[in-house]
Parts: sequence; C-alpha cells; structure tokens
Amino acid sequence: MRISELSRRSGVSVATIKYYIREDLLPAGRPTATNQAEYDELHLRRLRLIRALIGVRGLSVNTTRTVLHALLEHTSEQHQLLGLALGAIRLTDESEDDTAEVTEVDILIQKMGWEVHESAPARAVLADTLASLRDLGAPLDSKTLLPYAKLAGRMAVLDLNQLEGVTDPFDLAERAVLLTVLLEPALLALRRLAQEHESAQRYRAG
Amino acid sequence: MRISELSRRSGVSVATIKYYIREDLLPAGRPTATNQAEYDELHLRRLRLIRALIGVRGLSVNTTRTVLHALLEHTSEQHQLLGLALGAIRLTDESEDDTAEVTEVDILIQKMGWEVHESAPARAVLADTLASLRDLGAPLDSKTLLPYAKLAGRMAVLDLNQLEGVTDPFDLAERAVLLTVLLEPALLALRRLAQEHESAQRYRAG
Repeated sequence: MRISELSRRSGVSVATIKYYIREDLLPAGRPTATNQAEYDELHLRRLRLIRALIGVRGLSVNTTRTVLHALLEHTSEQHQLLGLALGAIRLTDESEDDTAEVTEVDILIQKMGWEVHESAPARAVLADTLASLRDLGAPLDSKTLLPYAKLAGRMAVLDLNQLEGVTDPFDLAERAVLLTVLLEPALLALRRLAQEHESAQRYRAG
Repeated sequence: MRISELSRRSGVSVATIKYYIREDLLPAGRPTATNQAEYDELHLRRLRLIRALIGVRGLSVNTTRTVLHALLEHTSEQHQLLGLALGAIRLTDESEDDTAEVTEVDILIQKMGWEVHESAPARAVLADTLASLRDLGAPLDSKTLLPYAKLAGRMAVLDLNQLEGVTDPFDLAERAVLLTVLLEPALLALRRLAQEHESAQRYRAG
C-alpha cells in the first residue's frame, strides 16, 4: 500500500509516519519505480504498536526505539516481551534507596509469593507511596496492603486472560499496552464509584 | 501556639501559612497584645486538610477554597463530606456528551446495583476510556468490565474500613483524601507486579 493508505488505516498522519522512519522506529517502505514507496501489513502493525507506546504509554521517541529494538530481539520469549511492553522490566539502571519502605514492599511480595524482577519499577512506586503516607501521618504497613495485593492478583488474572490467543508478538505487545495502561484510569474510576456506593450504604441511612 | 510552632507541627512554611490566610483557606489567628497571633488545634487540623487537598489531590487554591467552604456547611452529613473530599460530587456543572460509552457505563453501574450520583466525574472517565479503547481497535464492553467492577467493589470496602472510627469531619476528609488518592499509584503498582507474576506463571515455563 502507499503511504497515504498506511496513514488512513493506522490513523497516523503522513508527516508523523515519515518522522518515525527518520527516527528509526519504522523501517522505510520498499521503493517503487514511480519514485514512491510501498508499505505492507508489517508496517501497519508496527505503527499501531508505536502509537500504543508513545500515545498511550507516554514513552519518548528514544525509549520507544529501545523497546522496539528489544522486542525484535526477544520476540520468542513471551514473558520477556510483555515485561518490556508494560515497563515491568527496567531498560536503564537506576539506583534505589534502601529504606524501610523497600523492606515493607519486599515483605509484601514475599507474602504474596510473587515472582517479580528485583528492579521492577513498581517496587519503587510502592515504596514511595508508603513513604508519603508515613510522612503525612497516615502510615500503612504490608499487613494492611495484603488484601489489596490479593485483589490486584485477581485483577492480573483478568488482564492476562484478555491476551490469551494473541500470538503475533507485535499484536501481543500492542494489546498488552492498551489493555493495561488505558485501563488504569478506568480501574481507578471504578474504585471511586464503588467508594461512593459503599459510603452511601454506610453513612447515608442515618 | 505561635505561627512558628504551627509551621513546625504542620510541616507547612510560615510564608505558605500566611498565603493560605490571605487566600481565605485558613482563618487568621487570634491577635495578641504583642503584635502576634495565636493559633490553635483547629488551625493545625485545617492545615493538614489543605495540604491533603492541594498537595495530594492536586486541587487549585480556588477549588480548595470551594471544597473547604462546602465542608464547613455540610459537616453533619458524612456521606456528602466524603463525596466532596474525594471529588465524587462535582462542584461545577459540566455538560456531558451523550455517547454510546455513557450508556455502557450506565449498564455497568446498573448491573452492579451501585448507588452513585448522576454527575459523578468517574462516570465520564470510564466512558472516555471505553471510547479510547474502541478508537484504538481494542473495544471493551460492560460485560468484560463487570468482573473488574466487582473487584473494585471489594477494594472500596477495604478503603472505607480504614475510615471507620474517625468522627472529626476534618480528620475524616483528610484521611479519605490521603488513603484514596495516595493509594492510587500503589494499587496500580500492585497490579503491575501481579501481572508480571501472572505472566511468569503462564509463559515462562516453556
């Protein structure tokens, strides 16, 4: 297909497609005699993934390039691939503070029996939240977090169920990004609605 | 207490405390003979709530003033108070698009039997997410969301349990903001960790 059709089918403008090619996110099309280039389904699939990583996960062009290249090298390993797409695996080395909160997080992960990477960024997010809550005078320990972690575990089963049957590595990475990252505001919104309902049940009758 | 002690105990700088007084977020102290002002526990409590609304929930000074004034008028109604503090109740009228996604959200809320306000902002967030997913070619319907909503319901029970026994309206509002808003990144982090574990269980063995 021509670049105009690629643009139409992907929802990405021609100028942006050319920019992605210049930035080495997308391979160039096959040159044709008429001084144009021909694109195929692989370009379309790759563009969808780029849109998911940049537009939905909010990655920079540089990080997206790193993730895409890593995906191309690891596509045989589905677990690795999901980790890269979702940011469960860190691409750069960042040093981490060794605080009391990190220990609380380790205890929680151990209690859950979770098999997660030592440098998973989510560990740091958890530790930061616990530190903030403690600083603001509303400390939470791993015991209080445990029932939340169990609910998160059941949520992850629902999440992974939605990826069942998707075998193409680019499709899998794209779908994983869409369903996990885009679902985040929706899950928080569901919690807000449920809180309102629960509050009404407990307090409104009086 | 003097303003310096109020600053120390609240963790808010003297300059910021004076700014809050000028902006009518905090009542002025009681003037003393020595050309100073005297502050009490009520100021401290109010400052903590302001810090939660501005620093944690990210509200503007103007919106915080509106919420505080509304809280002062409604403190007898605990359900109303929680709704104001958490943003479940909208303070300004915003028109809403009447789209297919809004209907999907209504169906979901009806299926859950949730008693939530007609103009709860979380409804719009949900509808937006469903619209984005549909536009990106990964549609989700209310049937797929239903098990997530059930987990959110169980999460809300845990949330409200943590507010049990807090009777002072300012303390309740502050704690509600801290525990719900600050917990959001932690809950998403738990989901990421659980996803990584679930992915390892399903895909790594091969």
